[in-house]
Amino acid sequence: MILRDPVHGLVAFEGEDEKLARALLDTREMQRLRRIRQLGLISLVFIGAEHSRFAHSVGAAHVMIRLLERLSQVMDRVPAEERLDPVSRRDAIAAAFLHDIGHGPFSHLFEEIVPKALHHEDWTEAIIMDPSTEVNRALRAFDPEMPERVCALIRKRHPVAWLSSTVSGVLDVDRCDYLLRDSMMTGVRYGLYDLDWLLRVTTLAPFHSSGRLRTILAIEGRKGLSPVEDFFLARYFMHQQVYHHKATRAGECLVRAILRRASELVREGSPAAAGFPPALRMAALGELPSLSDYLELDDMTLSVALFSCEKNCDPLLSELSRRLRNRALFKTISLPPNPEKAWLWEEAHLIAKDIAKSAGFDPDLYVWLDLPEDVPYRDNREGEGMWVLVEPGHLFPLGEISFTIARLRNQRILWPRLCFAPELRDCLVPAVGELLGRKDPSN
Amino acid sequence: MILRDPVHGLVAFEGEDEKLARALLDTREMQRLRRIRQLGLISLVFIGAEHSRFAHSVGAAHVMIRLLERLSQVMDRVPAEERLDPVSRRDAIAAAFLHDIGHGPFSHLFEEIVPKALHHEDWTEAIIMDPSTEVNRALRAFDPEMPERVCALIRKRHPVAWLSSTVSGVLDVDRCDYLLRDSMMTGVRYGLYDLDWLLRVTTLAPFHSSGRLRTILAIEGRKGLSPVEDFFLARYFMHQQVYHHKATRAGECLVRAILRRASELVREGSPAAAGFPPALRMAALGELPSLSDYLELDDMTLSVALFSCEKNCDPLLSELSRRLRNRALFKTISLPPNPEKAWLWEEAHLIAKDIAKSAGFDPDLYVWLDLPEDVPYRDNREGEGMWVLVEPGHLFPLGEISFTIARLRNQRILWPRLCFAPELRDCLVPAVGELLGRKDPSN
Amino acid sequence: MILRDPVHGLVAFEGEDEKLARALLDTREMQRLRRIRQLGLISLVFIGAEHSRFAHSVGAAHVMIRLLERLSQVMDRVPAEERLDPVSRRDAIAAAFLHDIGHGPFSHLFEEIVPKALHHEDWTEAIIMDPSTEVNRALRAFDPEMPERVCALIRKRHPVAWLSSTVSGVLDVDRCDYLLRDSMMTGVRYGLYDLDWLLRVTTLAPFHSSGRLRTILAIEGRKGLSPVEDFFLARYFMHQQVYHHKATRAGECLVRAILRRASELVREGSPAAAGFPPALRMAALGELPSLSDYLELDDMTLSVALFSCEKNCDPLLSELSRRLRNRALFKTISLPPNPEKAWLWEEAHLIAKDIAKSAGFDPDLYVWLDLPEDVPYRDNREGEGMWVLVEPGHLFPLGEISFTIARLRNQRILWPRLCFAPELRDCLVPAVGELLGRKDPSN
Amino acid sequence: MILRDPVHGLVAFEGEDEKLARALLDTREMQRLRRIRQLGLISLVFIGAEHSRFAHSVGAAHVMIRLLERLSQVMDRVPAEERLDPVSRRDAIAAAFLHDIGHGPFSHLFEEIVPKALHHEDWTEAIIMDPSTEVNRALRAFDPEMPERVCALIRKRHPVAWLSSTVSGVLDVDRCDYLLRDSMMTGVRYGLYDLDWLLRVTTLAPFHSSGRLRTILAIEGRKGLSPVEDFFLARYFMHQQVYHHKATRAGECLVRAILRRASELVREGSPAAAGFPPALRMAALGELPSLSDYLELDDMTLSVALFSCEKNCDPLLSELSRRLRNRALFKTISLPPNPEKAWLWEEAHLIAKDIAKSAGFDPDLYVWLDLPEDVPYRDNREGEGMWVLVEPGHLFPLGEISFTIARLRNQRILWPRLCFAPELRDCLVPAVGELLGRKDPSN
Repeated sequence: MILRDPVHGLVAFEGEDEKLARALLDTREMQRLRRIRQLGLISLVFIGAEHSRFAHSVGAAHVMIRLLERLSQVMDRVPAEERLDPVSRRDAIAAAFLHDIGHGPFSHLFEEIVPKALHHEDWTEAIIMDPSTEVNRALRAFDPEMPERVCALIRKRHPVAWLSSTVSGVLDVDRCDYLLRDSMMTGVRYGLYDLDWLLRVTTLAPFHSSGRLRTILAIEGRKGLSPVEDFFLARYFMHQQVYHHKATRAGECLVRAILRRASELVREGSPAAAGFPPALRMAALGELPSLSDYLELDDMTLSVALFSCEKNCDPLLSELSRRLRNRALFKTISLPPNPEKAWLWEEAHLIAKDIAKSAGFDPDLYVWLDLPEDVPYRDNREGEGMWVLVEPGHLFPLGEISFTIARLRNQRILWPRLCFAPELRDCLVPAVGELLGRKDPSN
Repeated sequence: MILRDPVHGLVAFEGEDEKLARALLDTREMQRLRRIRQLGLISLVFIGAEHSRFAHSVGAAHVMIRLLERLSQVMDRVPAEERLDPVSRRDAIAAAFLHDIGHGPFSHLFEEIVPKALHHEDWTEAIIMDPSTEVNRALRAFDPEMPERVCALIRKRHPVAWLSSTVSGVLDVDRCDYLLRDSMMTGVRYGLYDLDWLLRVTTLAPFHSSGRLRTILAIEGRKGLSPVEDFFLARYFMHQQVYHHKATRAGECLVRAILRRASELVREGSPAAAGFPPALRMAALGELPSLSDYLELDDMTLSVALFSCEKNCDPLLSELSRRLRNRALFKTISLPPNPEKAWLWEEAHLIAKDIAKSAGFDPDLYVWLDLPEDVPYRDNREGEGMWVLVEPGHLFPLGEISFTIARLRNQRILWPRLCFAPELRDCLVPAVGELLGRKDPSN
Repeated sequence: MILRDPVHGLVAFEGEDEKLARALLDTREMQRLRRIRQLGLISLVFIGAEHSRFAHSVGAAHVMIRLLERLSQVMDRVPAEERLDPVSRRDAIAAAFLHDIGHGPFSHLFEEIVPKALHHEDWTEAIIMDPSTEVNRALRAFDPEMPERVCALIRKRHPVAWLSSTVSGVLDVDRCDYLLRDSMMTGVRYGLYDLDWLLRVTTLAPFHSSGRLRTILAIEGRKGLSPVEDFFLARYFMHQQVYHHKATRAGECLVRAILRRASELVREGSPAAAGFPPALRMAALGELPSLSDYLELDDMTLSVALFSCEKNCDPLLSELSRRLRNRALFKTISLPPNPEKAWLWEEAHLIAKDIAKSAGFDPDLYVWLDLPEDVPYRDNREGEGMWVLVEPGHLFPLGEISFTIARLRNQRILWPRLCFAPELRDCLVPAVGELLGRKDPSN
Repeated sequence: MILRDPVHGLVAFEGEDEKLARALLDTREMQRLRRIRQLGLISLVFIGAEHSRFAHSVGAAHVMIRLLERLSQVMDRVPAEERLDPVSRRDAIAAAFLHDIGHGPFSHLFEEIVPKALHHEDWTEAIIMDPSTEVNRALRAFDPEMPERVCALIRKRHPVAWLSSTVSGVLDVDRCDYLLRDSMMTGVRYGLYDLDWLLRVTTLAPFHSSGRLRTILAIEGRKGLSPVEDFFLARYFMHQQVYHHKATRAGECLVRAILRRASELVREGSPAAAGFPPALRMAALGELPSLSDYLELDDMTLSVALFSCEKNCDPLLSELSRRLRNRALFKTISLPPNPEKAWLWEEAHLIAKDIAKSAGFDPDLYVWLDLPEDVPYRDNREGEGMWVLVEPGHLFPLGEISFTIARLRNQRILWPRLCFAPELRDCLVPAVGELLGRKDPSN
């Protein structure tokens, strides 16, 4: 099976890999990922970013095949019990295909707004393990234990730790694909690192921790520093420029408002909630949606549902929905990013809510304190993070040995902002500006 | 206003252009294009091709600005009455933004399946001219006559013919953008021609035809041949490899089948047709949908409608819908492309329908004769086509002067195929193979 | 050994390939290719085209490794005696490294101007076979017969014909690399075809000709048509836009004039010829330069020699040399490309020479009739050209089955031009214009 | 005048710019830059890096035109006396063309080895100011004061400081071009930053320092941080991976050895020094070469001279020269980069020289202590460095406001290494390893 991909060009699955790819790609649950955009509402700001989680999953599996091909060159360094074999290789490729299978619509929004919603990782596990899904059936057709092993890889409880870290780690195939893909599709080129070279300098090395010896993914030699520094800087820039972009976040606050209002209507038993998707209704009531209801949710069904709220009999819901449809996003004021000034965030939020109330807007729907954060590079002495094999037997933490990564290491970066309806701007900006001691806090 | 775009990088609309861009992009009708994919079902085959007509329209407007900037360097050659002025410049940019505004979901499928449907060009005109639309209001806010002039540019009835041809012509901003965009997003790189160089060699020249002198868009000098040959070859390759790809076409036949069955149910007054979108119901009844009903249709609403047919009480509709959702596309057999052998196509179609009937499949839903065609480069002596200004005063038709385009000129290329349910394959392939004298006609 | 390359990114030679690469790249004769530009004087026109034949040779070897990797997937179709084995694989990679080893300075100019000069192919053979060279020694260290087998591959007399055709054929690794490299370095993007896809559709097939069955390189299936059409069109465009560009050719005529005058001085025994490189002196006298003298010639030594002629006591040589140094190239008039009008070329040449003489310029140095030509795609029934394996057992000539290649097939394309000193322009242009019936023939 | 360039694609000089470009590019001194590679000996390691300073100079002028076009949008913020006018615009473009005109062969090597050699900046000034050069004449033809003003821009003594900083500053057109060009040509993609976006965020701002108000180049708003961070990180990576690559530096030490030996021979009045280029002879004698002698030196003439030393009667010179020709570069041992350990460098150097002496090698020719260093980003309170205009009137130093640049700011990074003849390796590695406490110090 040969696919064309904007990011990787030719993507070929051949021999045993082709069997696996066909078996998984044709499942109903993988096909659903075609209808879930990788970047959710970000296409409201970056007009090209319509790419699906389906394409990303195929890309991640492609990178996995390349990575394992590279690592097989150094497999003789690995003790027998941790060595790659045809079975664990297939498991790893399956895990790459399936790592996002549990994602809901609009990226993380759904799980965020509904308190009792499972996290997408839990849904991923449910979809892989539940015997009713086509994915589960496809995996079992290879081997009855395969679903469990694939989950173990994704959830980091697999006995071969290094293999797990290729699926979920600081430098995993998920990130490898999405940085390139998001970068290309948004047109923000900072995410374009050199994948060929990165794969080339990846290796495996023995690592002692807590009295145990295990194999970890590592960077080979000082020559590997630049490609891996470039990778983490790419990740840093993409958060700065895309994932936490103020207009995206403002769009997300608007959807949050719609979902919050919709949930209220469900809980009130309002007739206005009649047509909502079952999964949304269950979640709003604090109950767990069934797997099949959850799988009905995707960007398309949820968008159509949200848009149709424009005609809802609840005036608040209808009004918010119209804003979304017409892309009348909320406005933002950035707050001081220093966590020691967190009291200012709350203060600003209170001021804003008061202003909203006086202006006749529901403060819980029209004013939001948005607190996105990111740690660009995380490591610790237990083996989390990346290690550099400077010479045989000498592993050093990337965060110590690299001049630039040392800067990003374990830093929590915050982009605190107030988001609010544009109508509040004229009152809100001077009031918050006064609090912050800035003339124009919207910059 | 600065946008990031995967194709053009930075896309800036500044000064007067910014006003226009803001006014148009924020309309409800332009925002709807976010929900219509440029390539319809082609993402079923090319996994990255999820880009929207919205991004394409922005790209076309960007190319228009660059083209007019280039042409303004030679504007002194143009008689006063055909010269670009601020008003016609703004009209042309608006036309580039709006040229696709009337497109329905799934590319051309909707208008194809429903006999009385308006063509997308007619909907485009309706949307621009109807005083109820936000687009019409936005244009009128600039100038009451602007809607009419913009339509004239798009429908080729504008008094300044060369300006019309930048919107709708053999080398227009629509093609300039979509070849690059589709090429990049599908990963099929044949569509990547050199836009910078193409703009550079574009010029304006006086042209005599039917006793009248007018200005036409032309290519400047022999040095312009290569970029423009490359452009038309790119177009040729994209048709060959993408637009008429067999799997895409097979997917479209499946959607055709669903729409045909749905239309039947509407006409029969079946309760199974209850939840269909109003525009679809009207069209099925041979009536013209209202503009607002038409505008409710987009890839999302139609997809959700088609997918929900899986639970329809009509077993045929339900069965077809499940195939689409699970991407169980039809299979194809290619037929001889020579139009003199058209009788073989009909013959093969009849054989296939008989086989379907015997196998218990509705032949009008499960067997399709698909006849895509394209003329890679079209010209005539009336001025259609491209002209090359070899030296001042000496215009030659591109189709005569270019070694490669002479080959493509006015050639009608056909890709005739049978499309059918996979279950029919074992009976159908040998039967049609015998007719065609080929062992395996599925190649 | 891992190299970085602007065209292919990472170029890795590993295991046995690394041994071969190290052995060959470190030879004095391969190192000399660092000092010979791939495109000779073309950098006078395309300012970035300074790339060396050394980088090209490395690139060709890299493509060979990729091509053989691809073909090894279909090697089971090949009869035992034509199958790739480790020895023939190594030979082929060596041939790719060495195919240009005999090239002299300034591309083909040296062999063109000096009547008895060997062609670069003959020098290639001499360098590989002569026991005094480091290349010969390096090959013999692997296997005493290796030099002969490598020559056989390059000179198309190897028993395994398909392998020879990967080194010297219509679609060989030489072209595969140079189209991409020249395209990138000149900034003329028409040469950028899709190498990944091209390799993918390459296959091997049995072929009957002259009562003999042999294996040939072929294209797999109709899906392979587009990449291979694109490749030959890329080649066509590069000839049109780069290799036969008028300014390049005018620069070459100037160097021809210098070499011609220098040769005359050698033959006259003039003291002015004292400092010329020995190889040049021998060639001018109609004798064969020694291999070691030939190897002393490269772009650097010849350039320094030509430039130093500026101070030569022969006024003609000095004058021509100063023009080159200051890039005062000749001017050109294009002549009708139709070979039936070849009499016009001679006529124009005579007129021009007369004008030169009257103006006091040596007509054999300051006026040149330049007749570059190319056949964009060549095939015949003996197996030259490319074949398409439409289905197993059914081979068709590319030139018949492809719509676009049919156009280029066996077409001889000419770019006849007069080249002359700029001082002659004012007299020459009207005189030749009158002959050709054109007002301004310099366009 | 339209040029094709691998980096910038189309490079057009039009109107007044075309006149300037023609006048300068055709001068003998600019043409000489065709024969000086941008990266000197780096092509010994990165096989594609053959690009010339000529192409770079054209690229720098192209970036200058784009930068000034961008800045003219904000020129109304600038006081009249610092505003761009047609004359200063032309001066700045000329300065971009000419900023490297004084460079000698092999990058900085020539000036480094010869104690009394002028720096290339001094030669640049001499070439522009000396009435005998074609460059001087070309500039004077525009305006008698132009040479002086162009020099003032290049040497940072121009009254309009911001304009000077576009030629020589932390973010100047020189760096803008060479990072992209070197990155592309070496195949090391870390240097590829986003020029379009960088130009977009560049602005001009009033700046108070030492009681004076002047205009400086600045970054507009926080949105400009990412592109400018990316630029300085690109610079940092290119130093790490390319400019200070160990094999490059080892090659340079070999050339240093040849030049040192050649200088000795000149000073000794040895007949072996007979054929050396006059400029080299003068420099070796501690005298200033004449301008015309200096201009005879380029990569070609110096290479041919160095290579011909292979046949020199001085055995040392001959031996060193053969190494260069056959690319038998020196080997390296990296030393601890901490400047507090500088005593170890000297220690290691002494040990190495002793070992060389014992082995019969001249320690001053065959052992070198190489101390390349770089400050990735330099700023100070006097206005050196880059400033960010966070909001109107509020300028902050980039090094304070940027999370990543704060890390690089005013850091002196060192890559100390021993370079030595490969024959010394077996003795030297253990001896130095012991000193450094490392098993294998060659890693």
